Amino acid sequence: MTAGQEAFNMQTININRLKERLDKVNEIGAMPVGGVKRLALTDEDKLVRDLLKKWFDELNLTTLIDQAGNMVGTWKISNQNPVAIGSHLDTVGTGGLFDGSLGVVAGLEVLQTIIESGIKINKPLSVINFTNEEGVRFTPDMMGSYAFAGLGKIEDIWSAKAEENQAINLIDELKRTGYLGEVKCGSVNLDSYFELHIEQGPVLEAENIQIGVVEKVQGINWTEYVFKGKANHAGTTPMRMRRDAGYVAASVSKHVRELTREIGGAQVGTVGITEAFPNLINVIPERVRVTVDLRNTDKGQLLKAQRLLDEYVSQVSTEENVAVDRNELVRFDPVNFDPDMVNLIEQKSKALGYSSMRMPSGAGHDAQMMASICSTAMIFIQSKDGISHNIDEFSSDDAIEAGANVLLNAVLEKLTS
Amino acid sequence: MTAGQEAFNMQTININRLKERLDKVNEIGAMPVGGVKRLALTDEDKLVRDLLKKWFDELNLTTLIDQAGNMVGTWKISNQNPVAIGSHLDTVGTGGLFDGSLGVVAGLEVLQTIIESGIKINKPLSVINFTNEEGVRFTPDMMGSYAFAGLGKIEDIWSAKAEENQAINLIDELKRTGYLGEVKCGSVNLDSYFELHIEQGPVLEAENIQIGVVEKVQGINWTEYVFKGKANHAGTTPMRMRRDAGYVAASVSKHVRELTREIGGAQVGTVGITEAFPNLINVIPERVRVTVDLRNTDKGQLLKAQRLLDEYVSQVSTEENVAVDRNELVRFDPVNFDPDMVNLIEQKSKALGYSSMRMPSGAGHDAQMMASICSTAMIFIQSKDGISHNIDEFSSDDAIEAGANVLLNAVLEKLTS
Repeated sequence: MTAGQEAFNMQTININRLKERLDKVNEIGAMPVGGVKRLALTDEDKLVRDLLKKWFDELNLTTLIDQAGNMVGTWKISNQNPVAIGSHLDTVGTGGLFDGSLGVVAGLEVLQTIIESGIKINKPLSVINFTNEEGVRFTPDMMGSYAFAGLGKIEDIWSAKAEENQAINLIDELKRTGYLGEVKCGSVNLDSYFELHIEQGPVLEAENIQIGVVEKVQGINWTEYVFKGKANHAGTTPMRMRRDAGYVAASVSKHVRELTREIGGAQVGTVGITEAFPNLINVIPERVRVTVDLRNTDKGQLLKAQRLLDEYVSQVSTEENVAVDRNELVRFDPVNFDPDMVNLIEQKSKALGYSSMRMPSGAGHDAQMMASICSTAMIFIQSKDGISHNIDEFSSDDAIEAGANVLLNAVLEKLTS
Repeated sequence: MTAGQEAFNMQTININRLKERLDKVNEIGAMPVGGVKRLALTDEDKLVRDLLKKWFDELNLTTLIDQAGNMVGTWKISNQNPVAIGSHLDTVGTGGLFDGSLGVVAGLEVLQTIIESGIKINKPLSVINFTNEEGVRFTPDMMGSYAFAGLGKIEDIWSAKAEENQAINLIDELKRTGYLGEVKCGSVNLDSYFELHIEQGPVLEAENIQIGVVEKVQGINWTEYVFKGKANHAGTTPMRMRRDAGYVAASVSKHVRELTREIGGAQVGTVGITEAFPNLINVIPERVRVTVDLRNTDKGQLLKAQRLLDEYVSQVSTEENVAVDRNELVRFDPVNFDPDMVNLIEQKSKALGYSSMRMPSGAGHDAQMMASICSTAMIFIQSKDGISHNIDEFSSDDAIEAGANVLLNAVLEKLTS
């Protein structure tokens, strides 16, 4: 088949139908100021799950709910392992209209397009909504896909506590919303997994590229440092007698930037949280809490960045006679997607005439959990200004249509192979 | 007179009587956890003022209340300008037992000692309690002595708003507590002014010295910087595309320390407040507010430090494409006390056999306002661990006795000259 022939054979989704479903999803938890709030297993999440279940039924899919509340709607064309398309319908507290939801409704749209096309396929096709991807109401994030992949004990997941009330466990909310299923986590086998997601970063827009072919997901190290010095009067305490937790925190925060320059490449580093106590204009800070978010697609480089940071923390806090309390909050290894899947996404983008580039994912996604159990691919589309987790999150209809068309044709290739 | 003869002629106060008065003062506003809370012109401040008025009456002093509520009790021995001893009875929210109160009760003790000694003096002796030295309930601090010295318009002082309720003006609280006097601010002439105060810093204790002979008061520059960048995802935003307000704030905070090294000498610098928004672990800070407290006894050096800081702020914020909102919160020039008065304190310390050292004051005091209208001296005593504005604030009886004895003999010298 020549490139011209292949382009001729490309299928296309119905962007209007996709957007109608996306709008219906985003009526649930809509905020007066824009954006949506659908925290995992709240009343809003139950409503959007009920809507998805209704759509599964309308498309005559077999619905499966597992012990972690993950919802799988399957078009059971054969007894082979299904090709799956998934993402999540939960959002952060001030969520946008695309993060997560797009991947689920695009899955439905792809599935409906394939049904209506009459194209003969060999494998079943599943659409998945994972529980609590955002990790806002229950910690950690990507909990549903982690459980689905059989990566943890279900009892530990069930006992996760709601952020607003430590007396509420995840299992209580699964029961309350009617989404505690019986299917054992780790028991569902898949042929492959696809996820369409907004980039949540500025690169595609800045480079004027339509499709991000995700090669890997950055590893993440979240570390909290609490520096404890001595509160003293800002005027009467000579510089040589100070034990200034604020000075140490500032030095470490600045060093994170220097570290990213030294490591270079894909290394990023961010100090997102800084909290000082007593936080008074004329008192030397006694205690300062900072969090350091280090990410790299290369595990060795990520470990090196963390080591260099910890060496610096130790040095500057010793010099200032400030104590350090260090807590490892998150450690995710980098994930490399199957090269054949990466090639498939790139090839379909080209065949459809879309510009594309290979890139890493800087954010965590359900796909990185799924990569541990099957061949996995992710497709990124442009996020305006790179804004996400914010009511201003925006991706254009053209961008969505392009991403969904790549998804459709890549999935078709797997379904027919 | 030889040194031996002078030592023989030294007078001494009654430490027990002084401590009894200090204890009575600190029963008012005492907190269950220790320490006191007597914010300016609250019910507690009214009670302690009434107690002082009672003591003024018991000692047959003439009481004068001025338009700013400053209380002056005078032993009217002649029509000459009085020698005055003063400080303040108001405290911060978690105040200690010595900051301010010690200076007022030491004044009473010195006055009573002189009365009972029968020593013939030429000038009247006044004890002063200044209104709102701490500046916690009403801004700015040292308000009473500022008004007493005729340095501002009384209408501006009257219209200062209570921190807890902007509908309450200072004049309302002067009226409510019965301490709105009729004596015009700036109309009272003094021969000289003395203030005994705890150091509120660690130097005397660290140097094992009993008496701090205060030569000058540091000038103070308080500046607020609000850095405004762009909130973006910590994983998906390449380092080169960041506008990180947290990085700029950290760089500036660290630079404050470097600045104090570069300027050297008496230069101190502190970043007391750091507040980040949105303050989330995986979001690049959009906005960070920091305050910089710069102090120096040399005005030229203080101005240089401020200029170097502002140059650095401009440089680093421009590099990061982060906007800066800069607000000058406080500007106090350094104050040099009368060299003769400094010599007098030093000489009396030596004659009494106390170790002493000349030092600057790093904190603001009523004495710095009084220095604009008469010869002024300050005496410091040790503060344990340099702790102040804290329930753990502590000075020993021995330290208090030494300080009050120096005060007594220095005041006597002025009264008899």
